[in-house]
Amino acid sequence: MTKIPEHHPSPDLEGLIGYNLKRAYVTVSDDFRRALKHDNLSPRLFSALALVKAHPGLSQSALARQLGIERSGIVAMIDELEGRGYVIRKPVPQDRRRQALQLTPAGEEAYKIALGKVQAHEARLLGGLDAGQREALISILQKIRYQKT
Amino acid sequence: MTKIPEHHPSPDLEGLIGYNLKRAYVTVSDDFRRALKHDNLSPRLFSALALVKAHPGLSQSALARQLGIERSGIVAMIDELEGRGYVIRKPVPQDRRRQALQLTPAGEEAYKIALGKVQAHEARLLGGLDAGQREALISILQKIRYQKT
Repeated sequence: MTKIPEHHPSPDLEGLIGYNLKRAYVTVSDDFRRALKHDNLSPRLFSALALVKAHPGLSQSALARQLGIERSGIVAMIDELEGRGYVIRKPVPQDRRRQALQLTPAGEEAYKIALGKVQAHEARLLGGLDAGQREALISILQKIRYQKT
Repeated sequence: MTKIPEHHPSPDLEGLIGYNLKRAYVTVSDDFRRALKHDNLSPRLFSALALVKAHPGLSQSALARQLGIERSGIVAMIDELEGRGYVIRKPVPQDRRRQALQLTPAGEEAYKIALGKVQAHEARLLGGLDAGQREALISILQKIRYQKT
């Protein structure tokens, strides 16, 4: 399948890392959405499941910070995952304002299936990168993510 | 300035290129917005100016395709740039449904100033990458962007 019948690059934009990051992310996330269409999981919902799985008892606000989204957005997202029976909110006795998030067995199972599909989507979409390019890319992206600004 | 007081990574997510792309883009675009706050130009508006500058006479639909956004979104965006006096829509005599976009002198000037700030923002934010890493990153991201899916 081909795409972009007409191509209009800007030399200024092509030299910017931000523009290339955005456009590469759009390519990857479009394919991610196609791969997980039947699971009805967006990249964001998938990431939320992954983070709760890795950190059972995580608070909503810690999850929001990790995902880089607003507190209002996280509440709607957890409502959605709770409504599907994937996540539960457990009260924290020591702190009444806080709720600890946990995956249910159905959430664990849905995450496991989705992770397999996501890994297959990346292997297929990014098959043109060799192992060295893949590693270099992840290492440079992590350097950007974790620097102090 | 430090950020992310609490850090909760997921080993599954850290190994995915899509997640690293998204998080790196969020870091870069947050800094971009700070750098261009006084110009009131989002990454998307800036990219639109860059593309119209590189391709005077570009149609709205070609610009929408290049930016990967919906036609409804592009109309609002061009209204905004036209309202600020940066862009004009010129009718195309051969095709009444089409309008050719062009920067005004004020748009050229605003773009030139913004481009200088964006290049300074990237040099500052990404100063930890050496020239080889920068080139490798752009080349791998373009490989992802331009592959057939």
